[in-house]
Amino acid sequence: MSIIGDLLIGDRQLRGEQGEIRAIEAATGKPLEPVFGGASRAQMEEACRLAALAFNPYRHQSPEARALFLETIAENILELGEALIERCMAETGLPRGRLEGERGRTVGQLRLFATVVRDGNYLDLRVDPALPERKPLPRVDLRLRNIPLGPVVVFGASNFPLAFSVAGGDTASALAAGCPVIVKAHSAHPGTSALVGQAVQQAVAACDMPEGVFSLLFAQDREIAQALVADRRMKAVGFTGSRGGGIALMRTAAARPEPIPVYAEMSSINPVLLLPGALAERGAAIGRAFVGALTLGAGQFCTNPGLILAEEGPGLDGFLQAAAESLAAAAAATMLTPGIHQAYCTGVAKLARHAEVTTIGLGLEGATNQGQAGLFSTTAMAFLAHPELQEEVFGAAGLVVRAGSAKELQAKLKPQIKKTQPYSKLIAHRGIWVEPSLLAEIEYRTKSAEGKVRHPFYKGLREDL
Amino acid sequence: MSIIGDLLIGDRQLRGEQGEIRAIEAATGKPLEPVFGGASRAQMEEACRLAALAFNPYRHQSPEARALFLETIAENILELGEALIERCMAETGLPRGRLEGERGRTVGQLRLFATVVRDGNYLDLRVDPALPERKPLPRVDLRLRNIPLGPVVVFGASNFPLAFSVAGGDTASALAAGCPVIVKAHSAHPGTSALVGQAVQQAVAACDMPEGVFSLLFAQDREIAQALVADRRMKAVGFTGSRGGGIALMRTAAARPEPIPVYAEMSSINPVLLLPGALAERGAAIGRAFVGALTLGAGQFCTNPGLILAEEGPGLDGFLQAAAESLAAAAAATMLTPGIHQAYCTGVAKLARHAEVTTIGLGLEGATNQGQAGLFSTTAMAFLAHPELQEEVFGAAGLVVRAGSAKELQAKLKPQIKKTQPYSKLIAHRGIWVEPSLLAEIEYRTKSAEGKVRHPFYKGLREDL
Repeated sequence: MSIIGDLLIGDRQLRGEQGEIRAIEAATGKPLEPVFGGASRAQMEEACRLAALAFNPYRHQSPEARALFLETIAENILELGEALIERCMAETGLPRGRLEGERGRTVGQLRLFATVVRDGNYLDLRVDPALPERKPLPRVDLRLRNIPLGPVVVFGASNFPLAFSVAGGDTASALAAGCPVIVKAHSAHPGTSALVGQAVQQAVAACDMPEGVFSLLFAQDREIAQALVADRRMKAVGFTGSRGGGIALMRTAAARPEPIPVYAEMSSINPVLLLPGALAERGAAIGRAFVGALTLGAGQFCTNPGLILAEEGPGLDGFLQAAAESLAAAAAATMLTPGIHQAYCTGVAKLARHAEVTTIGLGLEGATNQGQAGLFSTTAMAFLAHPELQEEVFGAAGLVVRAGSAKELQAKLKPQIKKTQPYSKLIAHRGIWVEPSLLAEIEYRTKSAEGKVRHPFYKGLREDL
Repeated sequence: MSIIGDLLIGDRQLRGEQGEIRAIEAATGKPLEPVFGGASRAQMEEACRLAALAFNPYRHQSPEARALFLETIAENILELGEALIERCMAETGLPRGRLEGERGRTVGQLRLFATVVRDGNYLDLRVDPALPERKPLPRVDLRLRNIPLGPVVVFGASNFPLAFSVAGGDTASALAAGCPVIVKAHSAHPGTSALVGQAVQQAVAACDMPEGVFSLLFAQDREIAQALVADRRMKAVGFTGSRGGGIALMRTAAARPEPIPVYAEMSSINPVLLLPGALAERGAAIGRAFVGALTLGAGQFCTNPGLILAEEGPGLDGFLQAAAESLAAAAAATMLTPGIHQAYCTGVAKLARHAEVTTIGLGLEGATNQGQAGLFSTTAMAFLAHPELQEEVFGAAGLVVRAGSAKELQAKLKPQIKKTQPYSKLIAHRGIWVEPSLLAEIEYRTKSAEGKVRHPFYKGLREDL
């Protein structure tokens, strides 16, 4: 199947009339053929019109017909064969093995949802029969089931060009539920999107589905994306991507006369807790393994461990030293797009020059569009005081937050121990008394009948007060 | 238990420092004692602070402890006895039987959620054990369960002073899940709210729960309500009430740096479909029964049938005539508050003088604060063209939307039948040909292999085109 660069609106292939989108070869930064036309407002509205028209006929298709449709999409994607993998590798810089695995997942998701539709449990059917004799009032026959919401807008992700994109999980689940889908393709991989989109379009025709059940739009500017979410005919949004982008769509969806749900999977910094016992026992081994997780897929997985929380101590020192050594040999990896690479470089540079941040180690420098891995550290106090340190850096960068230990606290308290209570108002409590020059925050679950705190948690010194 | 008129903040009773709220006797419009103090911003924030402090200790209480807490609240509400029912009757104008039933429901809900907590199924626990041999990657041990969101703000409803109010379904489910609750009492029944609030506060103490698990605020102005929803420590909102009020809170919740869910049950006009067969068979009987449903509880039930959709014809005429006759004998009923009564009168007057609306019948006129029932009708065309006719009129008012019948369409089409196709471009289709002077909208589910439409729906004449 060749890549034409047209919008797919219902059963047509139409040249986009507003702006151009170029695919970029991730490894070289060079443009790939063909040029994609961006959707105009009128073209977007035509897709919405067709989706709204398709909703009633599509939702009333039998479960078996919808299941076959999903399975036909899966077959058609597999039939794209090598052409899909090669185009996707070129556009994303992701390796063959990863993309073949992702294709398997994508096809598996479509088939899984086919079994879900046939099974019917997802309808959550409840039938409460009439109770005409019930007191004080009779009960009428009550029936409840899940129904499809209506046409759904899906925004594909940059980092999962197949499994979270044109025919990914959002599209598969919406189609399974009985909702037509309009996909706004991610500009990071328009050719991949076009190929998968044609596979879906052909399945629509082959299965005799109403044409508006699927459209694929390319768009150069965000206005079209916002207008899609604002369109009164659209009833839900599926989104995978950045927090900024997702929140912007949520605001639009919430401001509509009829607000609609936005199912958004947004950036995560994935906090990882390194427990003292594990660090003491195998800190160095965890440090080496950690670098593998940090750099996997150029750090562009949504499970990338961007935030590491640990207590100060020799175990953590061992972890950091081993991680720094592994990092020093870690190759730079091609990132998804020049834009994503640029954002990564900016984020890393911000961390590196932050007054409260220390650089633990860096990976090897890379060529065009390749991200150099990096590991940084800061203190718990600084992390809490500087919200900018809590922002995701999308790519192979991690921040270790070092928490002060109980020993550190003891060392501060010991010189202040008094034999008698140093307070002007005596407290009826047996304990160790210290000069009240430090303020500590203690949380507790409850108090015992004798007024003792139960399950206390030491939350830290409050040097701010 | 006496009604003091104080805020309940954690385990304290505090005089509200901002403005005053007066309870009004629904039947007379006269103020009731005592005067309630409204919460200041600082008092509201103290409730938030305590709720946030209580969250961790409360969520870690055992299921059994949380279940006992819910059951103690139920017991304490029952122990309020006659004082609760009498105060509630005075404040709402609702009859004793209705309120005793609602109290039973409220207590039943609390006990139901106690069984849900003990049962534990609501946690939806999933344990996927590790698969270290899995290809291409091993699977780690994965565990999933529902967790409480955090402190919840609950807004009580005017029309269910017990079951959807201070200790109603929202509060019971939030407490069951492990979430502290701050209730903003509805000003339509502050005394009822105070009594139930004290019952909850005493249960908190008796069950040794952290004090911040429950607070009850009165507030004169909407700023406090909005500030509660905007407070970063609050993590969800339960609301029952008007569409305007609910949407305003949703907007605030969506605009937060961390958006939170608003579980809102808002006004409904409850469309009722009268099918032609039922109308032909027993139109008059349905008309009489309908008036009973329309006027039940002064039309203030959320299931009030405010919109009736039916096809023109003698069956509908019979329904309307019987309904008008029943209405003429229907007594006016005391409404919940003077404000709600005033809004009802305004809504009914708007309908009565609307150019596209006919008055079918009116109930008996009432005394102070009593709503006169009313039934109105309009055409389907007018209903679609005038969005203001689609707004709820909270109270015993209904609007019948009369749809043109198939016979009406036939009568318009018959004079236009042609023996031959009147089109310049001939269509390869056998059928009855008419002069193309009317535009009809037909929707169909799909097309057959021969190109014939399947499952067509006649949607109406498009006189606008």
